[in-house]
Amino acid sequence: MNIPVAYRQEIEKEIKSFCKNLPAKPHELYAPMSYMLGLGGKQLRPTMVLLACKMFGGQVKNAVPAAIAVELFHNFTLIHDDITDAAPLRRNKPSVHAKWNTNIALLSGDALLIKAYECIAKTPKAHLPAILRLFNETALKVCEGQQFDMNYETQSKVSIDDYLYMISLKTAALFSASLEMGAILGGATGKDARSMRVFGTSIGMLFQLQDDILDVFGEQQKVGKQTGGDIINNKKTYLLLKAFELAKGNTLKELQKLLSEPNANRKVEGVKAIYEKLGVLKQAQKQMDFYHNAAVNSVASIKAPEKKILLDLTTALLSRGN
Amino acid sequence: MNIPVAYRQEIEKEIKSFCKNLPAKPHELYAPMSYMLGLGGKQLRPTMVLLACKMFGGQVKNAVPAAIAVELFHNFTLIHDDITDAAPLRRNKPSVHAKWNTNIALLSGDALLIKAYECIAKTPKAHLPAILRLFNETALKVCEGQQFDMNYETQSKVSIDDYLYMISLKTAALFSASLEMGAILGGATGKDARSMRVFGTSIGMLFQLQDDILDVFGEQQKVGKQTGGDIINNKKTYLLLKAFELAKGNTLKELQKLLSEPNANRKVEGVKAIYEKLGVLKQAQKQMDFYHNAAVNSVASIKAPEKKILLDLTTALLSRGN
Repeated sequence: MNIPVAYRQEIEKEIKSFCKNLPAKPHELYAPMSYMLGLGGKQLRPTMVLLACKMFGGQVKNAVPAAIAVELFHNFTLIHDDITDAAPLRRNKPSVHAKWNTNIALLSGDALLIKAYECIAKTPKAHLPAILRLFNETALKVCEGQQFDMNYETQSKVSIDDYLYMISLKTAALFSASLEMGAILGGATGKDARSMRVFGTSIGMLFQLQDDILDVFGEQQKVGKQTGGDIINNKKTYLLLKAFELAKGNTLKELQKLLSEPNANRKVEGVKAIYEKLGVLKQAQKQMDFYHNAAVNSVASIKAPEKKILLDLTTALLSRGN
Repeated sequence: MNIPVAYRQEIEKEIKSFCKNLPAKPHELYAPMSYMLGLGGKQLRPTMVLLACKMFGGQVKNAVPAAIAVELFHNFTLIHDDITDAAPLRRNKPSVHAKWNTNIALLSGDALLIKAYECIAKTPKAHLPAILRLFNETALKVCEGQQFDMNYETQSKVSIDDYLYMISLKTAALFSASLEMGAILGGATGKDARSMRVFGTSIGMLFQLQDDILDVFGEQQKVGKQTGGDIINNKKTYLLLKAFELAKGNTLKELQKLLSEPNANRKVEGVKAIYEKLGVLKQAQKQMDFYHNAAVNSVASIKAPEKKILLDLTTALLSRGN
């Protein structure tokens, strides 16, 4: 990645210090936070907060609390989503509810969300109202996205538009807010901050679409998780929805039958073959091109000397798992 | 109650307007909020915020957002605690997880906590940093108290001091913060705001100890829930812990045996008889007197013409269920 290593190091240092300063008791409330934050992760979102702040000539230290808040919030969603999905693993380690229990995961997730607000509260006073408002708005969007995602599991008709709307809330909103918060804290004009928001939404969409693709076509080792998981779980990803849109006759029947195929390998291979036959990957890449262009366009109007870093960021995001 | 009815009406109006303004979609995220807030409740905490603000000559409208935040936060804790306790009922109606499901209760609880912060964000700018800080600190205390409460369920040795510490976090902290926030927003001096905090802690402790007593000795109709619930669930209340502290010989053996008595009626009557034999109620009332005196003492130093209202509040709290 071309993203300055220094930002990532700053985030890691701050997260370590956050964990070190957690109260010892009640252990069951705070230990899951350190555990979750210690599982690693790319820390993309907080890095983006710092990067956006610096881009507009701001002092990075003013953006650190918001950056950490974003990372804590993201981890809070992972703890609670893992309960919802009954996911036993997170980054190849037991998820919080699997390692402790559901009640502990529920409560320590709650407390981690509050801890995120504790970080937000450390934002310089002049910017606090705007940052708090944006953080709240974003946090609600993420919850809405998660609820739509849960609804889609049992909803028979889900359109590509429904799906794109859902990921704009569940995934893209936090990317978008990370860049917008950084911009605000860096002293960007309202217009530039809004352009950063649009740019963030576009790369968030790109990120999620690519996630869907990597789950099916990525190399397991590079992606860091077993490929085909979405197929096995009948997850309504862009690929599956597109396949249902395009499939006709026998292909459609076969796809429907594969949803209840008990043999995981046969299911993954069967669905992949249909994806390839229907050119679903090409369609997804076309959709990604759309967001890629939107991202590049929103950069064009931004007035900041170092804005090239946004294009580097996009390239870096797109090189995941390859 | 002698507490001005106008405050309660103001709170009810604001809660109704909050529910009315909730987005329609996703329905599963927002409907549980209206449902929970519509179950009624005494709205003691938000009323206390307004009352404290007025007491120091502040404009009540400045305290309304914080008051609603406190009520939303309280309801968020109820939704999540009901999941934890697998409680099927809340105020004689199905709890949120029972009416919908656990995943919906988890997520709509999260969103309700965020909504509370959305209210906090509407606090006048000059007071926002202090109010946000106090709200965060309090929210964490409530989580810590809940975790200790969960731990005590399986912990063999729990002292009266452990118990009092737990309720100071789980129950008293929010009473305390409600009064302190109101005071700050009303323009109280730092010294008076701190006295309000101490007063709030004392009446919070009183409130919880009385709750423990009402659960055993209250009249079902007036208390609004089945009495004896704590006994049936072996809940480590002040009464049970005190009974274990005082019981000796055969009484201790009998008490221990009663914990695994399968017949609910026999269990409640048996434990009640032991409580009466050991004078546990008198001990609890002595403990309440201690907090009552502490409350009255902290009022003494407060400089506000209408401070008598705090004593009315205490009396009103103590007349519950009688």
